[in-house]
Amino acid sequence: MAEQAASRPSRQLSNLRRQHKGLINLMPLQTGGLLTTAAREALVEFGDGYSVCDFCQGSLCNITNPPIREFVQELLPSFLGCEAATITHGAREAKFMIMHSLGRPGGSIIVDANRHYTTVVAAERVGLKVIEVPHSGYPEFTVDVKQYAPLIEEHAPDLILLTYPDGNYGNLADAGGLGQIAREYGIPYILNGAYAVGRMPVSMEEVGADFIVGSGHKSMAAAGPAGVLGMKKKWEEVVLRRSGTYGNKEVELLGCSIRGVPLMTLMASFPSVAERVRDWNEQVSRAQWFSAALEDLGFKQLGERPHRHDLLQFETPALYEISRRIRERGYFLYKELKERGIWGPQPGLARSIKLSTFAADRQQLQLVIESFKAILDKYG
Amino acid sequence: MAEQAASRPSRQLSNLRRQHKGLINLMPLQTGGLLTTAAREALVEFGDGYSVCDFCQGSLCNITNPPIREFVQELLPSFLGCEAATITHGAREAKFMIMHSLGRPGGSIIVDANRHYTTVVAAERVGLKVIEVPHSGYPEFTVDVKQYAPLIEEHAPDLILLTYPDGNYGNLADAGGLGQIAREYGIPYILNGAYAVGRMPVSMEEVGADFIVGSGHKSMAAAGPAGVLGMKKKWEEVVLRRSGTYGNKEVELLGCSIRGVPLMTLMASFPSVAERVRDWNEQVSRAQWFSAALEDLGFKQLGERPHRHDLLQFETPALYEISRRIRERGYFLYKELKERGIWGPQPGLARSIKLSTFAADRQQLQLVIESFKAILDKYG
Repeated sequence: MAEQAASRPSRQLSNLRRQHKGLINLMPLQTGGLLTTAAREALVEFGDGYSVCDFCQGSLCNITNPPIREFVQELLPSFLGCEAATITHGAREAKFMIMHSLGRPGGSIIVDANRHYTTVVAAERVGLKVIEVPHSGYPEFTVDVKQYAPLIEEHAPDLILLTYPDGNYGNLADAGGLGQIAREYGIPYILNGAYAVGRMPVSMEEVGADFIVGSGHKSMAAAGPAGVLGMKKKWEEVVLRRSGTYGNKEVELLGCSIRGVPLMTLMASFPSVAERVRDWNEQVSRAQWFSAALEDLGFKQLGERPHRHDLLQFETPALYEISRRIRERGYFLYKELKERGIWGPQPGLARSIKLSTFAADRQQLQLVIESFKAILDKYG
Repeated sequence: MAEQAASRPSRQLSNLRRQHKGLINLMPLQTGGLLTTAAREALVEFGDGYSVCDFCQGSLCNITNPPIREFVQELLPSFLGCEAATITHGAREAKFMIMHSLGRPGGSIIVDANRHYTTVVAAERVGLKVIEVPHSGYPEFTVDVKQYAPLIEEHAPDLILLTYPDGNYGNLADAGGLGQIAREYGIPYILNGAYAVGRMPVSMEEVGADFIVGSGHKSMAAAGPAGVLGMKKKWEEVVLRRSGTYGNKEVELLGCSIRGVPLMTLMASFPSVAERVRDWNEQVSRAQWFSAALEDLGFKQLGERPHRHDLLQFETPALYEISRRIRERGYFLYKELKERGIWGPQPGLARSIKLSTFAADRQQLQLVIESFKAILDKYG
C-alpha cells in the first residue's frame, strides 16, 4: 500500500503553503494566535516530535528543562488567578476534562446561549444534558446572568458555564455576578475564557469561578493545539486525579497532554502575552473606533454597545446586495480584500462578517476601513 | 497578576533551547519523529495558531486547502490498510476514543502485558477493567496471542488490544494470529501501532484488526502532538459518530482534533514516510548488527531474538557497576555519550538502556559502538 500512497500527492504535500501570509489579519480565530518572535524560534527548536521529552522523568508538567514545571505550577496560576493549573490541547479539551470529572450520569450543565459549539459537543461526549440561558436576541444578544438562578433551582445541574466573551458577538456577560450566584448555590462554575485569557486581564479568583479555560492558539500567541486550565485547589484531586496504576499520571490528561511544540510556543510567548493584556484599554478603544467607522459605511455592529472586546460582528446588507448580483457571490469580498492585503471575513460570507481588531494597528485598520469604502464604491 | 508573571521568567522563556540538537539520536521516543525537510518548512509556514483553518467550512477533516480531506479520506486509509481514518492528538487519544465509544459500563478490555501505560490510563478514564495476557518473562518477554482466547471466554470483554511492537522490548507479537481469534469470537480488536505505523509496513486489513492506531510524533516524522486512527467502515458511525446538535462535528474529536501545525508536519512528511517503510528490511538488519556488536561488549539484548525492530533494550551490568562507584551515578553515561555526540539512553539510567537504531546510519552506529567501548575502557 505504501507504493500507491507515495506517488501522486508527494509534490503537493511536500510543499504546503498558506495563502494569507503577510496580510493584515482580522480573522477572529487567528488574531490572538499569531506567534511572537520568541515562539517562532521555539517552533523551529522543538519541532521534532517529542523533543520536549528530553529530560522527562515521567510527567510532562514536572519537566524542568525546558522549564515546564515553573510555567505550569507558578506562572500560569499567577496569570490566571487560580490555585492550580495544567496544560491541555485546547479550551474544548479542558471543558471535556472538567465535565467528565464532575458530571454524573444523567446530569446536566447550564450554559449561556452564546456558548461555543464545543461546549455542547463536550457535554454530549460526557452524556450531560445542556440547558441554555437565553440571550436577549437581535441586535445585542446579551446574556443576563441572573437568569442562571431559577434554572439552577429547577435543574440542580452538575456544573454551570459562562462564555466570556462569546465568539460570535464578543459580548462580556457579568462573570463576577455569576460567581456570586455559583457560590450561593454551591455549583461549580466554568469560565470559558478562550477569547479572554491572553488578550485581556481576567482572574478566576476575582470572577469567583471554580475553573478558567483558555486557548493557546486562539488568544495566547501559540501554535495549535494548545490550551490552559486553571482551577481552585479543591478540584485538583478531582480533575487532575492520578491513575490508580501509575501514580504520576493524570487520568484526564492520559498522562500527558500537549507533549510537543505547541507547548513550547505557548511558553515562549508567555512573557509577551502577560505584558500585552495590560494594553487592553487601547484594544477596546481601537475596536470601538473601528466599529464606528464601519457603521459610518452603513454596516451595523451587533452585540454589546459600547463594545468591550476586539471581536466584532457586523451586518453588511450592502455587501450582501452586491454578492447577489455578481458571479463570485460572497467570495467577491474575500478576493477584493485579499487584493488589498487584507484577510479576515470567512470566505464566501457577505451578509454578515466577523472581524477582530486585535492584531492590527490603527494605521492598518484605517486601510481596512478605506478598503471597505472602496469596495462599496466599486460595486455601488 | 500580569505584572508579576511578566518580569522574572521572561529571559528564560523567550530563549528556549534544546540540549540535544545535532547529536546522533538513539532515543526510542524520538528517532521516528524527526522532521523531514518538507515538515520543517510546513512548521514555519503554519506555525501561527489556527492557520490551518483559513478555508475551514466547519470540519477539519474536510478542509481541501491545505489538502487535509485528501490526506484523511484517501491517503491515510490506503497507507493504514483500513476503510476509514481520522487524525488525533496521538495514539493514546485514539485508544481513548475507541474505548469511550465501544466500552460499556462495567466492561473490560484484554491487553498484552507489554502494553504502554497509556492503554491502562485510557481504560481507567473510561472505567474499563484491564485484563492482561502475561508475557513470557525474562529475558524475551514475548506475548503468545493464543492466550487471549481463554481470557476472552472467561471475561467476554468489550475490546482486545495488542501493542505492536511494545515500547519496552520492541517485540512483535503475532498480530495476524490475534486477528483470527478476534474474528472467531467477534471481539473488536485494536492494534496499537505507535511504533509500527510510519516505520514498518503494517496493514490493518492484513492483520485482521478492527482499529489501527499510529503516532505522528513517535513514528511518522511529525511534530507532537499528532496521531492517526484507522478503522473498519462499520465502526465509523460508532467512533466517528456526529453530534446530535452539530451534524458536521464528530463527538469523540470534540469537533476537531489537531487543529494546528502538528497536522501540517504529519502531512508534509507523509510522502517520505510512506516511502521509508519500504526500507524496513535494512532497518531490521541494521538493528540486529548493532545489537550483536553491543553484545560483544558484554551487554545483553532483551526481547525477541533474532530481533525484528529498531527498538532495543539492553542489560548493561558493566555500566551499572561503573555508576555505583562514581560521583555522577548513572548520569555519567549521559555525559560521556553527549561528549561524543550521542544522545539516547534516558539520563540517569545505567542498569539497562533502551535505544533505537531507526534514525542513525551504519557509520553513526559504528561510532556509537566504539563510544560504548571507549567508555567501558575509560572506567574499566
